[in-house]
Amino acid sequence: MRKVAIIGVGHVGSTTAYTLISKNIIDELVLFEPREAILRAELNDLMDGQMEQNNQVRLIEPDLAELSDTDIIVFSAGDISIFEGNPDRFAELNLTKKIVEEWAPKIKESGFNGILLNITNPCDVITQYLQELTVFPQERVLGTGTTLDTGRMKHAVSQKLNVHPSAIDGYVIGEHGESQFVAWSSVRIGGVPITDTLSEEKLIALDAAARDGGWVTFRGKGYTSYGIAIQASRIVEAILNNNYLVAPVSHYHPAEDCYVGSPAKLSRQGIMESFPLYLSNAEQVKWQQTIQTIHSMHGTI
Amino acid sequence: MRKVAIIGVGHVGSTTAYTLISKNIIDELVLFEPREAILRAELNDLMDGQMEQNNQVRLIEPDLAELSDTDIIVFSAGDISIFEGNPDRFAELNLTKKIVEEWAPKIKESGFNGILLNITNPCDVITQYLQELTVFPQERVLGTGTTLDTGRMKHAVSQKLNVHPSAIDGYVIGEHGESQFVAWSSVRIGGVPITDTLSEEKLIALDAAARDGGWVTFRGKGYTSYGIAIQASRIVEAILNNNYLVAPVSHYHPAEDCYVGSPAKLSRQGIMESFPLYLSNAEQVKWQQTIQTIHSMHGTI
Amino acid sequence: MRKVAIIGVGHVGSTTAYTLISKNIIDELVLFEPREAILRAELNDLMDGQMEQNNQVRLIEPDLAELSDTDIIVFSAGDISIFEGNPDRFAELNLTKKIVEEWAPKIKESGFNGILLNITNPCDVITQYLQELTVFPQERVLGTGTTLDTGRMKHAVSQKLNVHPSAIDGYVIGEHGESQFVAWSSVRIGGVPITDTLSEEKLIALDAAARDGGWVTFRGKGYTSYGIAIQASRIVEAILNNNYLVAPVSHYHPAEDCYVGSPAKLSRQGIMESFPLYLSNAEQVKWQQTIQTIHSMHGTI
Amino acid sequence: MRKVAIIGVGHVGSTTAYTLISKNIIDELVLFEPREAILRAELNDLMDGQMEQNNQVRLIEPDLAELSDTDIIVFSAGDISIFEGNPDRFAELNLTKKIVEEWAPKIKESGFNGILLNITNPCDVITQYLQELTVFPQERVLGTGTTLDTGRMKHAVSQKLNVHPSAIDGYVIGEHGESQFVAWSSVRIGGVPITDTLSEEKLIALDAAARDGGWVTFRGKGYTSYGIAIQASRIVEAILNNNYLVAPVSHYHPAEDCYVGSPAKLSRQGIMESFPLYLSNAEQVKWQQTIQTIHSMHGTI
Repeated sequence: MRKVAIIGVGHVGSTTAYTLISKNIIDELVLFEPREAILRAELNDLMDGQMEQNNQVRLIEPDLAELSDTDIIVFSAGDISIFEGNPDRFAELNLTKKIVEEWAPKIKESGFNGILLNITNPCDVITQYLQELTVFPQERVLGTGTTLDTGRMKHAVSQKLNVHPSAIDGYVIGEHGESQFVAWSSVRIGGVPITDTLSEEKLIALDAAARDGGWVTFRGKGYTSYGIAIQASRIVEAILNNNYLVAPVSHYHPAEDCYVGSPAKLSRQGIMESFPLYLSNAEQVKWQQTIQTIHSMHGTI
Repeated sequence: MRKVAIIGVGHVGSTTAYTLISKNIIDELVLFEPREAILRAELNDLMDGQMEQNNQVRLIEPDLAELSDTDIIVFSAGDISIFEGNPDRFAELNLTKKIVEEWAPKIKESGFNGILLNITNPCDVITQYLQELTVFPQERVLGTGTTLDTGRMKHAVSQKLNVHPSAIDGYVIGEHGESQFVAWSSVRIGGVPITDTLSEEKLIALDAAARDGGWVTFRGKGYTSYGIAIQASRIVEAILNNNYLVAPVSHYHPAEDCYVGSPAKLSRQGIMESFPLYLSNAEQVKWQQTIQTIHSMHGTI
Repeated sequence: MRKVAIIGVGHVGSTTAYTLISKNIIDELVLFEPREAILRAELNDLMDGQMEQNNQVRLIEPDLAELSDTDIIVFSAGDISIFEGNPDRFAELNLTKKIVEEWAPKIKESGFNGILLNITNPCDVITQYLQELTVFPQERVLGTGTTLDTGRMKHAVSQKLNVHPSAIDGYVIGEHGESQFVAWSSVRIGGVPITDTLSEEKLIALDAAARDGGWVTFRGKGYTSYGIAIQASRIVEAILNNNYLVAPVSHYHPAEDCYVGSPAKLSRQGIMESFPLYLSNAEQVKWQQTIQTIHSMHGTI
Repeated sequence: MRKVAIIGVGHVGSTTAYTLISKNIIDELVLFEPREAILRAELNDLMDGQMEQNNQVRLIEPDLAELSDTDIIVFSAGDISIFEGNPDRFAELNLTKKIVEEWAPKIKESGFNGILLNITNPCDVITQYLQELTVFPQERVLGTGTTLDTGRMKHAVSQKLNVHPSAIDGYVIGEHGESQFVAWSSVRIGGVPITDTLSEEKLIALDAAARDGGWVTFRGKGYTSYGIAIQASRIVEAILNNNYLVAPVSHYHPAEDCYVGSPAKLSRQGIMESFPLYLSNAEQVKWQQTIQTIHSMHGTI
């Protein structure tokens, strides 16, 4: 049975659960959520939401003992409302690192030996902290990283050039945050380098659109859900199906001594291989800057 | 192109949009939502949420002119927060009838000649009011009715008897509200009458579980979304695919002179046929009571 | 990983493989087929056929050792060409019982401890013979039984009454063969007994249409594939997803001391529960006749 | 309603029909097939094969008048058995050009004004001949071209490098036949040029594997079906969903004055845009050779 646990059932965790269920990616789901009424509500609504489909997911009561044979934990605990006054990743880190400190020992002691997929922000630093506190092998702990940002870049390019997202080959890399960037030098549309098609000015505008996309959503509804849920679900599917998907997840880079988002190959064992980056000189400078940003955030823990 | 408009993009409208997109039910979607920031947020997040799929839905800016070639309008305008202090369908009606009065003339004048599917509560009375104010043919205006309640009954029975929901044949009928009831006399599991399997006491408990399911969800998260989204999406699919699905939607019953939920056959033309009810004597009494409830609510408009 | 083996990759086995792959029901597939060139062709074409999808199924070289951790074996070995001259289930039995005698010891010795799903005809007798020769627990050996015939009945009723197949509740039961019959007394459409809608004459015609449907397909293309593939795939999904589907599979009936098709509940452990039949007097006579037919065929082994 | 017609229901046409139905790509399907018993068999089996799904496709009796509101015609008429003695595209052309001469006037006179998608081989020349005889605008007539060959290249690379096919960006271009080639200079895996990973020797072997893949399938089962069905279905979906998919379909290249396979963008209007090719010098030579091959075949008509 394909068994997943979600820790933290806010909007992101809940929408990820709905997506995993409706896309037939899992067979069993354990939800952990401290707010009991919310937990009951989500369990009830998710069950109502699967009544018309062939595959049925068993929704399991929260119990740490369930983690011992769970294949993947999706870690989505946090409180995005902290952004309401002051949109600051450092402030968020102060909150979410405490949640990691609460959960990491429980996960470790549960006997869990699957893959830990982190969504909680600041994604790269929190993923790293989860690995440090659980002491799980680095390849078994990863974050959604710049998968959502890559999706947003494809959204912006797709609309700009009227092209199906599958025709866009390329990645947003670096921190899942302000210092991320599109590696435009290697983005291609149907085999054609985007730098042959669009001016640098237009690429800068698209880069901004990709980076700011999350804020448009956040400002309007107070959280983002569908974009991140679809990326997390795809990563979960890749791991369970062992299909060697390549995605820009946050994973440990020995050369940089930190977690950061760049293309990596996924399997049942987690991170199977990190792909080398092909960057222009200007992009290499940006890469060093994003690494520094991550290091400085990690240093404040 | 399969074109749908959603009027009112709160949690229900938004989750219905996500479900229609992710299940490949539509090609084009127009969202109408007065809160501009929310509209921008949902358009942006829904676009992010479809970046990894084959089918791509064109998200269209709100414009009444778009309705002239829209196949189906999903009407989900409302404000569930009215329930927070005082869970009363009458209070809700006072609010939502005004929204109908605002939208019905716009829909009528737009040249829309598709199917109008109402979700807004009180579902039966609001569906009827939409029909009355638009003067569209009755077969082209319907409500989600007791489809969600039937789903909840299957959820309760499925968990009680450990059986796949598809094996449960039967319906919740009547008002989508407190006076609804399960027509147990005709519920069967794998061909076996449920009345041969469970005592009347247990059936009463299951009936309550189905009726109260929405409140568990509402009390916890302040709204319900997945259960209703999946039912609305299924009805939309049935109409667009013209597949003669039978579902307990709210539709006009000439004998009762009102809209009420009971099994009906759906096609591209809306309601194709209402199925006769096979009720026990006790159920016939309940049916008359639910009809009276709807009439008395409708009388207050 | 959801691992399935198919023994016998003719048209039925091949189309079942394609369906399992394209509907995301499995993760790993082992094909066994003595005609080496056919095996290579199918492996190659099935791999080409999954290049555009998210989930990727690992296609595994035939090796009996693979069966030890296989979840389900689909047994579809046989040679439908025997029907070309003389459409006779007894003649077929003479051929297919030898294939069972060849495979049963291999399956038994492989250490396989999953569920054995038989499609090979005559389905009921061959399923029973597979159970007898493997000595696996009876609940772990089942046949597709009258699932395809029930599908054909729904096809005939659906076309006759212009109704979605999901609205048709009822079953074809008995031998998967000439003595099968529709239990019309319990067939309902949208809750309405079909006997209230159609005359006995029309029901007899529909019964014939369901029974003869396979011959229309067979006479034209020399085999049947899509109908059976979809039923086998649904059973495989129900077992792997442990979803308690109710389907008229062929399973052991202690009261009749044989395998025969009637509604049963499926789980990871195979047959979980057989549902009691609600038959009219005339249907009970037919039931006894179909049991006798199965016994007499089994007696010739 | 999404309406498709398939002309020629051999293995390719039949498997394409099954795929279009099971993947919810169409609502209505008209099958044209001169062998009446085969037509009856396929209609019957395809209907049996959709009994368990939500979406239901209306299967329509063959009638040229149906083409007037058909969105897409899939042309898959032919007789692959001609290859049994002598695998020669010229011999095939002699046969299939006559089928085109029979069908083109009928299609033209039917009032059809949708998109004509050809699968029949030799694909490029037959597509061109269909356009010439129907005199439809060139953008509305296209062939599956090297989509299947590109799928086979991804199959070969995916297995060689253990990577998900979606991570492979690149195309097979040219004639759908012996003179096709992989444009290796622009193939990348997760952003890494394949030429940095594999030696030229290994690339030559992969090229051969992609080109010969079809023969492995053909020699074993006498036809190929799943690989081509999935590509044709994806093209049909892209056109109906108007999603701007980029695929190496066969389309008219004014500079070469012939139909040939290379990346193009698809919409409801057919070919929307042909993408420029980025070829190495050696690849440009191969391109000229494949164009000559197509011209010389076309010259024999």
